[in-house]
Amino acid sequence: MKDMVISSVQNPRVKAVVTMQQKSAERRRTGLFVVEGRRELEHCVEAGMDVKEVFVCEEMDGWNDEMRGLMVTEVTRAVYEKMAYRGGTEGVIAVVKSEERRLDELKLRENPLIVVVEHVEKPGNLGAILRSADAAGADAMVVCDPLTDIWNPNLIRSSIGAVFTVPCVACGSEECIRFLKAHGIQILTAQLQDSELYYDVDMKGGTAIVMGTEATGLTEAWRQAADAHIRIPMLGRLDSLNVSVSAAILLYEAVRQRGGTRRG
Amino acid sequence: MKDMVISSVQNPRVKAVVTMQQKSAERRRTGLFVVEGRRELEHCVEAGMDVKEVFVCEEMDGWNDEMRGLMVTEVTRAVYEKMAYRGGTEGVIAVVKSEERRLDELKLRENPLIVVVEHVEKPGNLGAILRSADAAGADAMVVCDPLTDIWNPNLIRSSIGAVFTVPCVACGSEECIRFLKAHGIQILTAQLQDSELYYDVDMKGGTAIVMGTEATGLTEAWRQAADAHIRIPMLGRLDSLNVSVSAAILLYEAVRQRGGTRRG
Repeated sequence: MKDMVISSVQNPRVKAVVTMQQKSAERRRTGLFVVEGRRELEHCVEAGMDVKEVFVCEEMDGWNDEMRGLMVTEVTRAVYEKMAYRGGTEGVIAVVKSEERRLDELKLRENPLIVVVEHVEKPGNLGAILRSADAAGADAMVVCDPLTDIWNPNLIRSSIGAVFTVPCVACGSEECIRFLKAHGIQILTAQLQDSELYYDVDMKGGTAIVMGTEATGLTEAWRQAADAHIRIPMLGRLDSLNVSVSAAILLYEAVRQRGGTRRG
Repeated sequence: MKDMVISSVQNPRVKAVVTMQQKSAERRRTGLFVVEGRRELEHCVEAGMDVKEVFVCEEMDGWNDEMRGLMVTEVTRAVYEKMAYRGGTEGVIAVVKSEERRLDELKLRENPLIVVVEHVEKPGNLGAILRSADAAGADAMVVCDPLTDIWNPNLIRSSIGAVFTVPCVACGSEECIRFLKAHGIQILTAQLQDSELYYDVDMKGGTAIVMGTEATGLTEAWRQAADAHIRIPMLGRLDSLNVSVSAAILLYEAVRQRGGTRRG
């Protein structure tokens, strides 16, 4: 259902989208965020999120049919390009109500697999971790003391929609540690000091894999709380792996030990 | 040894760097490429590559001392920013002679571990694969029928210097298949069709892990040449992993099977 075509980049709805794309403070203030891309929006709708409005570029065909039930507004190419954060997003942009999830709202299955990231600053890395967490069938990602919000456009984009398929919680490290201990979920911290090789640790029971930043690692609270410290052997000259790649290697070791299924 | 300070963005040496950054054709024509960043340049020098000239931003201190023996030219911040492809590269840019390596020049150790990528188009993905290949102690990366050159600035940057620590060869798929067969290196192709779970395949002997693009996968030549087709189980909703993440998971399975050392 088209209700109008917007052709001015000065349109207040257009300007609101641009501001929301750029500023986390604006996303917090409004309780809204922006989703770009057909695939991403499909996952967002499937997840039952509250889509407030959808803008499509007038040069696209066939989108409206698939978006039955959503309010769709056509915009000119110039307006679309003003609103789009990155290219190649297939001419569709939506404004969605953000939902803050709390730890105690997580639905944990038997022997849950959780990835925890502390202080990781790059939204692209968080999105990439979510994508791998989806593939590995992880139950949740917990972002401790986050330096970015979950609804950052780079995070959503690099997750290719996994931000809608993997439950995400932002909270403090102490709160997360208490939660994991209370649920009997073992804490495996990725760190070099006093560590075991990651594949020598049993991950078949409930497991949280905890990653810090590439530069400074994890805080003392996590090191103390850990049931085991695990490391990935570094056999090269550079002595470093990207944090999202490390997360994927560790998550897939859990998958391997669990026989390629979600459960052990 | 400073020989001059360049303050004009019209300086022909500055313009030559900018063109080399932007155009693969210019890199091919001149046989030169550009390295940005202190760490990257250190790995480049360690690898014994022929550094033709080094430009440093005049606001940096202490760099020249570490670059003894290289011809260093100071440039103003404005000139540096004109030459730099990305921010955060620590004020140093060098022009280096490119070297084309051939398959028969590779020094293979016992039970080599090689990663092969066919048609992968994004330089950032190739760089990320190199970074993981370095960490996993792989012997080489072979890029078959490449859509980008090895000396692309995004590739170098995302490899954080692994392009200098992991031998890279560009060649045709048929040539690479002949080489692997001649050396008794098993070919494991990442593909869904008729595949085994990757961790059910023995990777302790000489192994080539072969990856195609995320969109279209591998060509028929590789599928036919494979000793085994391997797949990573997908337990989520999105049914996709980033190609560089997949490569890391597969390389580290070889590391695990080989007991965390280079050799089985």
